[in-house]
Amino acid sequence: MSSKAPIEKVLSRIDADIDTSVERLMELMRIPSISTDPAYKDDTAKAADWLVKELTELGFDASVRPTKGHPMVVAHHRAEGPHILFYGHYDVQPVDPLKLWDRDPFDPAIEDTAAGKVIRGRGAADDKGQLMTFIEACRAYKAETGTLPGNLTLFFEGEEESGSPSMIPYLEAHGDELKCDLALICDTGLFESRTPAITTMLRGLAKVEFTVKAAKRDLHSGMYGGLAQNPIRVLTRILGGLFDAHGACVVPGFYDDVDELPDEVRAQWQALAFDHASFLGDVGLSVPAGEEGRTPLEMIWSRPTAEINGIWGGYTGAGFKTVLPSEASAKVSFRLVSRQDPKKILSAFHDWIAAQLPEDCELVWSEPEGSAASTMAISNPAFEAARQALTEEWGVPAAYVGCGGSIPIAGFFQNLLGMDTMLIGFGRDDDQIHSPNEKYDLACYHHGIRSWARILDRIGG
Amino acid sequence: MSSKAPIEKVLSRIDADIDTSVERLMELMRIPSISTDPAYKDDTAKAADWLVKELTELGFDASVRPTKGHPMVVAHHRAEGPHILFYGHYDVQPVDPLKLWDRDPFDPAIEDTAAGKVIRGRGAADDKGQLMTFIEACRAYKAETGTLPGNLTLFFEGEEESGSPSMIPYLEAHGDELKCDLALICDTGLFESRTPAITTMLRGLAKVEFTVKAAKRDLHSGMYGGLAQNPIRVLTRILGGLFDAHGACVVPGFYDDVDELPDEVRAQWQALAFDHASFLGDVGLSVPAGEEGRTPLEMIWSRPTAEINGIWGGYTGAGFKTVLPSEASAKVSFRLVSRQDPKKILSAFHDWIAAQLPEDCELVWSEPEGSAASTMAISNPAFEAARQALTEEWGVPAAYVGCGGSIPIAGFFQNLLGMDTMLIGFGRDDDQIHSPNEKYDLACYHHGIRSWARILDRIGG
Repeated sequence: MSSKAPIEKVLSRIDADIDTSVERLMELMRIPSISTDPAYKDDTAKAADWLVKELTELGFDASVRPTKGHPMVVAHHRAEGPHILFYGHYDVQPVDPLKLWDRDPFDPAIEDTAAGKVIRGRGAADDKGQLMTFIEACRAYKAETGTLPGNLTLFFEGEEESGSPSMIPYLEAHGDELKCDLALICDTGLFESRTPAITTMLRGLAKVEFTVKAAKRDLHSGMYGGLAQNPIRVLTRILGGLFDAHGACVVPGFYDDVDELPDEVRAQWQALAFDHASFLGDVGLSVPAGEEGRTPLEMIWSRPTAEINGIWGGYTGAGFKTVLPSEASAKVSFRLVSRQDPKKILSAFHDWIAAQLPEDCELVWSEPEGSAASTMAISNPAFEAARQALTEEWGVPAAYVGCGGSIPIAGFFQNLLGMDTMLIGFGRDDDQIHSPNEKYDLACYHHGIRSWARILDRIGG
Repeated sequence: MSSKAPIEKVLSRIDADIDTSVERLMELMRIPSISTDPAYKDDTAKAADWLVKELTELGFDASVRPTKGHPMVVAHHRAEGPHILFYGHYDVQPVDPLKLWDRDPFDPAIEDTAAGKVIRGRGAADDKGQLMTFIEACRAYKAETGTLPGNLTLFFEGEEESGSPSMIPYLEAHGDELKCDLALICDTGLFESRTPAITTMLRGLAKVEFTVKAAKRDLHSGMYGGLAQNPIRVLTRILGGLFDAHGACVVPGFYDDVDELPDEVRAQWQALAFDHASFLGDVGLSVPAGEEGRTPLEMIWSRPTAEINGIWGGYTGAGFKTVLPSEASAKVSFRLVSRQDPKKILSAFHDWIAAQLPEDCELVWSEPEGSAASTMAISNPAFEAARQALTEEWGVPAAYVGCGGSIPIAGFFQNLLGMDTMLIGFGRDDDQIHSPNEKYDLACYHHGIRSWARILDRIGG
């Protein structure tokens, strides 16, 4: 790209067109593409169609690719130079509890806040705003030069927020079309909301929903209370014992495949001087609640977790119902690190629960899913080139960081397609992704677009 | 009554009119008077109006009495003889989960089952069918004699399933009008589905809903998991420790005011030879799950309980959301016995939870309610008279029994109005009150009507 258009011209074009770039993002955000909820199936498809239309207008050879679930979007622009794949996801998280939103989650708007202008609405940061940074960088380049910036394949998924059930079969079937020299993924954030970052460690994720069943129907506690088994009692007793007094998960073998952090990584993380008091203070907390003896960055980047993400049973409506329910359920997930195997972890968790079930109780185990952790190949020179581009754009030295979240696609690109994968994103810690009132800072969107222009200038064709 | 009409004639009339008695009950059952849900406020009022209309037609001086909540229905028939008050409640439990019902809960029908004909629908047994046994006994008497059977006051409540918030103020304001020589309450059952019973011990009930709050918003477990406090984890840890290894509740002082059973009552209960295997087997269970070293009858009649009736927190919809919720909640109730004080128990429970809350967590305590246990004055000769009437009607010696349920009105009649109170009802253990597919056996309804005719014959004017 550097041989074709001066980067300054492209950056100026991005600055001049930022208002229309925002308007295009909000158009995409107005489509409620909640992939996990079948009620939004058509809307999710509509978001895919919208992307194909935009990319086709930009000159990509773009199309919707059906799967058994939500469709993929694939767009190619063939040119000289290294073949680069860019990945993002166009689906979003559910929006409940809706009453905690200050506005319709799918009627986005620019809002003035004490910290600057933000784009407010579901998907603003995760991941519609992030994927649009790349598209808008391409658009600015096209506007200046009449062509697209390099040998590019764009690959957008609509099932990231619902476990990506179609991804592995799709990559297995279309690996030849998608395998590139380097993959870029834009679904991560800045470090501590201010330092540009390339994520080099990702935790994996294993998750399962299960139900403890006892009596064949709900019972009246006046009639049966004290005599009959109560599944909520069983569930709370078992899950209440998931951690020891030091905050460690007690599932047998849970830490068997967890490596200690290499000394050099530990030193680099210490140099980042993570301000956990402010990180927690922003959400109303003050005390690290994880494993004793671990630093806060270890807790979120390099240690595995067990979390109860949802629990329900009995009467939960208004008023009171003195019922002994016939069943109680929970959704539990584990963030995985190092060599932890999702299947092995979920199987150990299942057995640990089953061994504690009293008589008359049954365990119904459903929807186990998982992906392992991954570590990036930062020896690829593209990493250092991108780090320099980010440092130039943000005026702060870019950092190699870990990420507590799970972006299974990075592992798939590495393991199924053999691609080196670079994770760069522009989210902030207070973006409230997966929560009410999600937002993306206008400055992050703008610098994000400019960042991709600079990165493509250094690593592109 | 015995001086005015031969009991045999009244019983024959009941037999002849049973079909129309059933039709009237089903008319009342078609009104969805769910008192705990504000959406059914008008329907609840409609049920009160329906009763006033029926009672007025029968010759009672009946009227709806407004309260701050749902109305009372009061009906008088002045005559010679002891003044007897009859109590029932016209409100019903919620019907969720609706999908577990085999029919519309408010479209009742007679169904043939292996165990005989049943009246199926919400309220069939609790308490519309039971209160109608008394009204239909009065109707048969009126049909034979042209007048009502004695010096009667009928008193129906519409808030029994939602904690009776208006009852104490109402009794305090209208005690003079309602105080009688004896109160009859029809909201209990047969012993083991076959033996007529007069309930002489009732457990009390204390209940509370509470919420554990942590972060000020839901958090993404990828970003915060391992570092931030999870309220579901806190809630399950605390509630998971509510019982010791022997099934006893660990809240400090919980058993302080619990009396051991007197030897003669223990002997009488042993003579009842309660078949707990069949009682539990009917609902798919096999093992008593309460305190070690207690008999099953003690567990449900004379020992206090702690039960988690509902629990909820985090994402509970379809699919998965890897959220650390900002809060998690539970509804917990205690069945009380002997001299246990509801306020003292709830206060001890509150303090026990509060003492276990980690830093950054807040406890929100709402809607505590309670009523103490009560024991009836069986020295009143009406008890023995009623026991003989029930023995005659059912052909099985009637028993004095305990009841695990809480019928606070019995305590109110005793304590606020100084009335001896007799609890007689005709429900069966498998009536599925408070559950889907509630029913009342046609035979129970029929014998119930006949039972009241016989009891009024012995104790009435």
